[in-house]
Amino acid sequence: MLSLPQRIVVEITQMPILKNPSLICGFPGSGFVGKLAIDHMIEQLKAVSFANMFSSSFPPQVLIQPNGTTDLMKNTFYYYKGETSDLVLLGGDAQPVTPESEYEMAEEITKICDKLGIKTIYTLAAYITGTFTKLPKVYGTSTLEQIVKEFHNYGVSVMNSGSITGMNGLIIGVGKRKGITGICLLGETSGYVVDAKASKIVLEALVKMLGLQLDLTEISKKAQDTENLVKTIEEQMGHRTTGESLHMPQHDKKLGYIS
Amino acid sequence: MLSLPQRIVVEITQMPILKNPSLICGFPGSGFVGKLAIDHMIEQLKAVSFANMFSSSFPPQVLIQPNGTTDLMKNTFYYYKGETSDLVLLGGDAQPVTPESEYEMAEEITKICDKLGIKTIYTLAAYITGTFTKLPKVYGTSTLEQIVKEFHNYGVSVMNSGSITGMNGLIIGVGKRKGITGICLLGETSGYVVDAKASKIVLEALVKMLGLQLDLTEISKKAQDTENLVKTIEEQMGHRTTGESLHMPQHDKKLGYIS
Amino acid sequence: MLSLPQRIVVEITQMPILKNPSLICGFPGSGFVGKLAIDHMIEQLKAVSFANMFSSSFPPQVLIQPNGTTDLMKNTFYYYKGETSDLVLLGGDAQPVTPESEYEMAEEITKICDKLGIKTIYTLAAYITGTFTKLPKVYGTSTLEQIVKEFHNYGVSVMNSGSITGMNGLIIGVGKRKGITGICLLGETSGYVVDAKASKIVLEALVKMLGLQLDLTEISKKAQDTENLVKTIEEQMGHRTTGESLHMPQHDKKLGYIS
Amino acid sequence: MLSLPQRIVVEITQMPILKNPSLICGFPGSGFVGKLAIDHMIEQLKAVSFANMFSSSFPPQVLIQPNGTTDLMKNTFYYYKGETSDLVLLGGDAQPVTPESEYEMAEEITKICDKLGIKTIYTLAAYITGTFTKLPKVYGTSTLEQIVKEFHNYGVSVMNSGSITGMNGLIIGVGKRKGITGICLLGETSGYVVDAKASKIVLEALVKMLGLQLDLTEISKKAQDTENLVKTIEEQMGHRTTGESLHMPQHDKKLGYIS
Repeated sequence: MLSLPQRIVVEITQMPILKNPSLICGFPGSGFVGKLAIDHMIEQLKAVSFANMFSSSFPPQVLIQPNGTTDLMKNTFYYYKGETSDLVLLGGDAQPVTPESEYEMAEEITKICDKLGIKTIYTLAAYITGTFTKLPKVYGTSTLEQIVKEFHNYGVSVMNSGSITGMNGLIIGVGKRKGITGICLLGETSGYVVDAKASKIVLEALVKMLGLQLDLTEISKKAQDTENLVKTIEEQMGHRTTGESLHMPQHDKKLGYIS
Repeated sequence: MLSLPQRIVVEITQMPILKNPSLICGFPGSGFVGKLAIDHMIEQLKAVSFANMFSSSFPPQVLIQPNGTTDLMKNTFYYYKGETSDLVLLGGDAQPVTPESEYEMAEEITKICDKLGIKTIYTLAAYITGTFTKLPKVYGTSTLEQIVKEFHNYGVSVMNSGSITGMNGLIIGVGKRKGITGICLLGETSGYVVDAKASKIVLEALVKMLGLQLDLTEISKKAQDTENLVKTIEEQMGHRTTGESLHMPQHDKKLGYIS
Repeated sequence: MLSLPQRIVVEITQMPILKNPSLICGFPGSGFVGKLAIDHMIEQLKAVSFANMFSSSFPPQVLIQPNGTTDLMKNTFYYYKGETSDLVLLGGDAQPVTPESEYEMAEEITKICDKLGIKTIYTLAAYITGTFTKLPKVYGTSTLEQIVKEFHNYGVSVMNSGSITGMNGLIIGVGKRKGITGICLLGETSGYVVDAKASKIVLEALVKMLGLQLDLTEISKKAQDTENLVKTIEEQMGHRTTGESLHMPQHDKKLGYIS
Repeated sequence: MLSLPQRIVVEITQMPILKNPSLICGFPGSGFVGKLAIDHMIEQLKAVSFANMFSSSFPPQVLIQPNGTTDLMKNTFYYYKGETSDLVLLGGDAQPVTPESEYEMAEEITKICDKLGIKTIYTLAAYITGTFTKLPKVYGTSTLEQIVKEFHNYGVSVMNSGSITGMNGLIIGVGKRKGITGICLLGETSGYVVDAKASKIVLEALVKMLGLQLDLTEISKKAQDTENLVKTIEEQMGHRTTGESLHMPQHDKKLGYIS
């Protein structure tokens, strides 16, 4: 039972006791890069849900489930108990619809980090280029310069300009103000398709950084589907790419934009 | 006399004492499917108004009545005393204009449900397809899986994906969080015309579910008007449909969208 | 000295003592019909300003005066002492930019009405038709049916459908909820030009209803300017109208819309 | 450590003690005229930062620094100790995204002015014309008529109509209501390019008004870059201007608009 007129409501089933936990976030956004990645982790790690977050600044709609039932949009917290350290995973249906409620939700999430003893937040996002590319890269930024310097050890390219919009960016900015280290990993993607290939390479970099065992079979299959879809699109456009990028016609306003 | 800077104001004339009441909502939306249906019920059941709901998040305008007078936009609650159980009917002029105020109004309505002892909410909405069809269906979703399983008994098709935007969706999602059972019935409609035919089939399913006696003569006449209008449009477009659907040209962005 | 984070701030120089006062409002809107009318009244009646109203929901800008100085956008209250009854005139620079702040300002204005003993509010607005017409009409609506019935005595046509958007509509709707009688007079206008002719005919109806002496020479001159401008437009479009209306090409979405 | 759900948070390192200080603001806006100017001042005067201002109404994103690290968007206050009087300089990443939060931030800034004993605010802005011109002018407006009359002594042209939108306008309007003198200097610019030339001429007028020593070498180099860029654009458009203005094709809606 909850009362909703407050902008954000967190329903906690039971607060877990965790050892040295990090938070991994994958909010739905461009190409669903972060969302596919976090959903894969939740499933493969059999992570346990312990809290739902509702907000009156989510899109005003209900989502219909495969069994025909319906519920408000929500984000859900899961935990995973690892050998030496634990993880909190945050996935969900939506991002808030106004700038102010995005800041507010980022703040709310850092409060939960405080309660759980979380010292590091990873967000998984998309680096949109407006072009299809054979060998997409993973880009990274962090609130700590030391971490930026170590990115090359994990095959992560350093970003040195631009911005990250939405929750995947805000939460590490707000976390920084509260003494939490933030890291954002962004998978290169055209921005034109749901891109499991970008999700896969982000996960590959993440597991290296975390020293985590994670079966990537399922996301690799979906990545292959993405690759096939892109190939079909390219063929229909009459361009058999031979390694170089293919530029889509319009839409390139967003080129180089990150979200 | 009321003071309006609060976002929502409910003016109650006299709170009725009701036996086992359900709430039926028909907010104005696509095709006016829900609004036509609820207005028909209010009229046929000679339901009695007992509360008005004003909100500073309604569109900032006044509506002019047929007699030349004017009033703020409002939603109105009515009650109907049945043989074994009673009904509360909620109809009105508008939905709130921002996401947050939609959540807030849904919350406010569930508070009134609490006071009246309402355990089940039905919302009447539109299922937009972007095409004209001879035999539109009624779709349904519910917060309870048991109810979803019984939909076929009432000729209601189960939805198993998508979303329901606006008050007709939100109120059953918010109600669910407060322990109220929610059911949304959606009449298939093109989305291009005010569609009394969709309203009529939704009402037919509703009265079966409620075991309610309701004279459908008036709404059937209006449904015939809708059918004639659609036939005229189809003829003007040079397509005499012979059973199959007719796709309208543009606008099909909204195809499959529900509101 | 005032502090602004509240949404609305009213700076009162000195609250006048008035006998049987009515409020006349002319907010800037389509065709500047209401604004031109109220500015004419303020000037001709040598009305005395006694309060400024600022709002953080006005457009975020400053206006530059003819002498090169600048100030926040504001609305200003004036009073005029008549023989048998007094007037309060409300004119200004802007309407609030969000629906909620429009409701809030309407509420704030009715509070000032309470303090001044105002029992009737007149708002002066535009009735947009999308066409140029030789003999524009004045339309009216009221919160009291009795007043609607008397409109014909003043050459005012009764509206019996549609809506009035913005402050000129809201304030009579909000006032009604507080027991204040509201009357809106709307001058027919194309919506394409600043229309002093519409302002003039609205003023002519208003002075009849109020039994007020008001020199209309200045507004009549401006009305002649409007007429000349329209004639030039019509000639450029190659249509010498001979009494009937001239429809402008596009834009007629707004036809019949009132604001 | 700060908590962000409040709309504006000011983190003060150490409040300086200043003699007779004025505030100079250059918010990012059209042509980055104000921002380039204030950044030049901060650098040349080796001004010392003493406070950061964060807001949940800034665009919801983080900015990536050249070293690969990231932070929330923020505005920063600096001070400079002059010989006879001191300066406070306010520069930053963004303006708030809603009208109400712009008013709120203007109010917050005037509170800081109060604490520092600031009696005069200068804002540096752009006067957009939609055309390229060889000899752009500096325009000015003030809350005090006396200052307007003295503008010609500094080569500043007087504005006598129009409006100034955004923080560069609002802050002098809100400051006026609190007894602070406001001056806005606007550099003429096409609005099509980042215009260091406009920044330079605004700075030239400002230093005259302040009696300030400021090395303009760097901004003059950037102004030359702007000039070269504009020349290239003009040549590509096939118009070698010979002194008179060049009108860009579309976009001229904004002509004469100031922001």
